[in-house]
Amino acid sequence: MVTIIPNGHSLSNAAVSRKLTTMTSTNIPPAPARGPADHDVRDQIVAAATEHFSRYGYEKTTVSDLAKAIGFSKAYIYKFFQSKQAIGELICANCLREIEADVSAAVAEASQPPDKLRRLFKVSTEASLRLFFQDHKLFEIAASAATENWQAVISYEERTRKLLRDVLQEGRETGDFERKTPLDETVASIHLVMRPYLNPLLLQHSMDSTDRAPALLASLVLRSLSP
Amino acid sequence: MVTIIPNGHSLSNAAVSRKLTTMTSTNIPPAPARGPADHDVRDQIVAAATEHFSRYGYEKTTVSDLAKAIGFSKAYIYKFFQSKQAIGELICANCLREIEADVSAAVAEASQPPDKLRRLFKVSTEASLRLFFQDHKLFEIAASAATENWQAVISYEERTRKLLRDVLQEGRETGDFERKTPLDETVASIHLVMRPYLNPLLLQHSMDSTDRAPALLASLVLRSLSP
Repeated sequence: MVTIIPNGHSLSNAAVSRKLTTMTSTNIPPAPARGPADHDVRDQIVAAATEHFSRYGYEKTTVSDLAKAIGFSKAYIYKFFQSKQAIGELICANCLREIEADVSAAVAEASQPPDKLRRLFKVSTEASLRLFFQDHKLFEIAASAATENWQAVISYEERTRKLLRDVLQEGRETGDFERKTPLDETVASIHLVMRPYLNPLLLQHSMDSTDRAPALLASLVLRSLSP
Repeated sequence: MVTIIPNGHSLSNAAVSRKLTTMTSTNIPPAPARGPADHDVRDQIVAAATEHFSRYGYEKTTVSDLAKAIGFSKAYIYKFFQSKQAIGELICANCLREIEADVSAAVAEASQPPDKLRRLFKVSTEASLRLFFQDHKLFEIAASAATENWQAVISYEERTRKLLRDVLQEGRETGDFERKTPLDETVASIHLVMRPYLNPLLLQHSMDSTDRAPALLASLVLRSLSP
């Protein structure tokens, strides 16, 4: 059971900012041919923006506010990011990649497809709760991303469906799962079952059930997959 | 496929108000021993309140605003309803009862438990879309009700679970559904699967999937129930 609550600021702003700076350095492909100095500036902007958004909110902050707070000119920020959303996308993409890393690791640790599926349900709910709600204002970015269907979200959903498909395919090969239903249909319907615990907009209204839902739903899905 | 969109005002305010006045007269138990005249006044207040909320929103309207708009004194309204929420509860309860009536009728028309279950998914999604979103401001009342867990919502959820349980029980008796899983678990997990299409807070973020989800999810659930 995950005990994090929506507004529980379980990390200080500075900690979130340090964490995301590290994530930025390790997870994001380098900006095209601007050299390491530019790279550092991008990281600085993302770190400062994360801290600023965490404190004042993403929606309400403009690039001008951000520039003023960071001590850079607006024009200088625009040299590195074409819009506020571009900064938000980077923060959001890092957040989603962290969820994915947790889920993939948990799935890889299990040896049998049914157990992989159980972990997929459990860990994706737990990781989504932790990443979207650990800091109220990161939820705000994730919510904007989901509402406006940012590219980071579309790619994340595609990769989640791919992971699910791989587990199902493996279970069909081992004989753990039935093979009569078209694989596309199985993937689409199981993804719909998981959606309230993956999408931050639905997750915020599913808090009452996050302790018991992953196990109950995984069991139901496993019964539906029985050969 | 239901084509209603969130902000599509498919009924005029007057039509919604007429409709709800009729519903009030037929569905709600009489107020205790105040005689038919009081009864009529209650109906009038609810009709006028529905129209007012539809136009100006539920959250923003106070009982004073309402009194001014209706032409009654605030004290007179308080004679019949102890708060704005009490009026909202009546409007909400009528809305939920209309959904239930549609769903129960559709389930009763089917003869086999698997078909009953398919209809339960399909019609409850369609009726929820129609009732919660036919008028933007009725959604606002339904959303407040769901957020604050009004009694009308609690009772509605209990009755929905009861209907689901009855269908499952019947299917266990006819041999259409498996009997190994505890019935309580089956009810709880299928109710979780349906939740994004029943609860207005989740439904508003599930619009992309309301055309295909009921059939896909009903098929998945039916596979999970296979004996």
